[in-house]
Amino acid sequence: MTLPSPLAVAMGDPAGIGPEIIAKAWARRAQEQLAPFFAVGDSRAIARVWDGPIERIGGPDQAAAVFGDALPVLTVECASDVDPGHPTLEGARCALHALELATGLTSAGAAAALVTGPVSKAQMYQIGFTHPGQTEFVAERVGVAASATVMMLAGPTLRVVPVTTHVALARVPELLTPALIIAKARVTARALGRDFGIASPRLAFAGLNPHAGEQGAIGREEIDVIVPAIEALQAEGIDAVGPLAADTMFHARARATYDAAICCYHDQALVPLKTLHFDEGVNITLGLPIVRTSPDHGTAFGIAGQDRAEPGAMIAAIRLAADAARRRADALATA
Amino acid sequence: MTLPSPLAVAMGDPAGIGPEIIAKAWARRAQEQLAPFFAVGDSRAIARVWDGPIERIGGPDQAAAVFGDALPVLTVECASDVDPGHPTLEGARCALHALELATGLTSAGAAAALVTGPVSKAQMYQIGFTHPGQTEFVAERVGVAASATVMMLAGPTLRVVPVTTHVALARVPELLTPALIIAKARVTARALGRDFGIASPRLAFAGLNPHAGEQGAIGREEIDVIVPAIEALQAEGIDAVGPLAADTMFHARARATYDAAICCYHDQALVPLKTLHFDEGVNITLGLPIVRTSPDHGTAFGIAGQDRAEPGAMIAAIRLAADAARRRADALATA
Repeated sequence: MTLPSPLAVAMGDPAGIGPEIIAKAWARRAQEQLAPFFAVGDSRAIARVWDGPIERIGGPDQAAAVFGDALPVLTVECASDVDPGHPTLEGARCALHALELATGLTSAGAAAALVTGPVSKAQMYQIGFTHPGQTEFVAERVGVAASATVMMLAGPTLRVVPVTTHVALARVPELLTPALIIAKARVTARALGRDFGIASPRLAFAGLNPHAGEQGAIGREEIDVIVPAIEALQAEGIDAVGPLAADTMFHARARATYDAAICCYHDQALVPLKTLHFDEGVNITLGLPIVRTSPDHGTAFGIAGQDRAEPGAMIAAIRLAADAARRRADALATA
Repeated sequence: MTLPSPLAVAMGDPAGIGPEIIAKAWARRAQEQLAPFFAVGDSRAIARVWDGPIERIGGPDQAAAVFGDALPVLTVECASDVDPGHPTLEGARCALHALELATGLTSAGAAAALVTGPVSKAQMYQIGFTHPGQTEFVAERVGVAASATVMMLAGPTLRVVPVTTHVALARVPELLTPALIIAKARVTARALGRDFGIASPRLAFAGLNPHAGEQGAIGREEIDVIVPAIEALQAEGIDAVGPLAADTMFHARARATYDAAICCYHDQALVPLKTLHFDEGVNITLGLPIVRTSPDHGTAFGIAGQDRAEPGAMIAAIRLAADAARRRADALATA
């Protein structure tokens, strides 16, 4: 089945690499077989860094007809001109408006899924943005508590979920509870079925300590926290294995044995993902009523406007969003 | 320059894959261009799992002449027969005797370097072995405090050093001090020059927290502990950069910018190393008067005696030991 509507791609900070990688993704639409999408942001930010065809559209319904010949842009005009590599507060405001509009259109069904370009958190905070990041903003807008969502990073051969995210490492042992692990794993298992089409998802759980604690000899969190969580999940019928020694669970043969690795903390999940798939990692927010993905990199102000940005992660984010949205649409159609 | 003497390869637990991978390494001696070595252990353990030529030798001085035609074995007889995959306390005793003999021969200069096969710590502890592992045993035997040594894991495209090793993750923040980081980095920088032939070694330091703490927003260890250590090392003339966000320092382009990554804890170092180089990782103990390496895997009792063990890591361990020993010998000859 084809998608009922195009994807909305929020441009992110107009002075970052967002405009460039969206344009480059469009330029590769045929070879990458990308579903129709439209950019949401200031079309001048794209024209500033790319000389391909752009067409401003009045609404998402015009995107599909335009997509074959030009990059459709639903314009959110910035008050001032954009200077690539030099972020401004006005640019941050523009990024926020684009995010808000793209989220609203997706939530309303006018767009099939939401893809968000990179923003500068430092700039966003200065204009009064009170959410830790775009994920929390989107969750609020679609009526889900951020704590009920799950951040998954997905690459071609590995999917990882950090149970705790942007907290100091010293706080991880106290934050790691059976309830938190169970909640994250449930959302993950459901999303692997609904968004990735994996009928019987296999979850592998990393231990917190070296060698997964060696039966309590090097830390007891495996015994006291992780094993109880795994046993509770198994009792619900979820295919859960572990706790595994983190250092031996990410090589090729090990990765082939599970569909997602549930990790205790940020770097335990993101080190293997980015070591393997630095240029093609996708951040997908699980547990939302809409599909939302994002390329797993930042604004890269340092190379903005120099035609050096790689669109691989943006292309992967668009493809994953389209795949997940199509699966949800198919499930609705056959329900 | 060629090596002054052959390498000593301690067999490790005779019921593990040690005997098999040593024999397979010898079988590939020509294609892998391995320097002459001899095994130290019970020759029957090798004959049990391999039908190639074995020749018992009376001492290291006979190894080179034998090496072209048969695997030279300096035999340490086990009291009982070996059953691959079924470790015994007698086997652990045999492994310990082999380790002790191989260490002594290397320390005395009769062997050019020490390569140690995998042992079962659980079995070793039961026969009264009081060291945490082989590394600490070897350090004591050659007169160096274990705390003055450094564990480095080396693969074809990455070398990592964990500043803290086999401790619970919750203890890492308290154990991580400028003095400890400085001590480990100094030994590492010296060894990169002496054993790896890198004239001006570049060290990259990982942050402890996500995104290296984001200027203190997610943990202060970078500011309070790691930066002071880096500055002190730079003041000594050591090329030290960081703290870097751990998740973005191990992809191919990032790895090309440094010679060793100095990591805060076990999994931060070993996850990227084993994700990339699971079958070829070498553990090398830096800071010893002798060269000592080891394949970075365990006894693998589950596949012992089935001709399924991959000798890649053992071959890499032998090659790295020979290279390091040759560099030390050359340095002595030209001093």
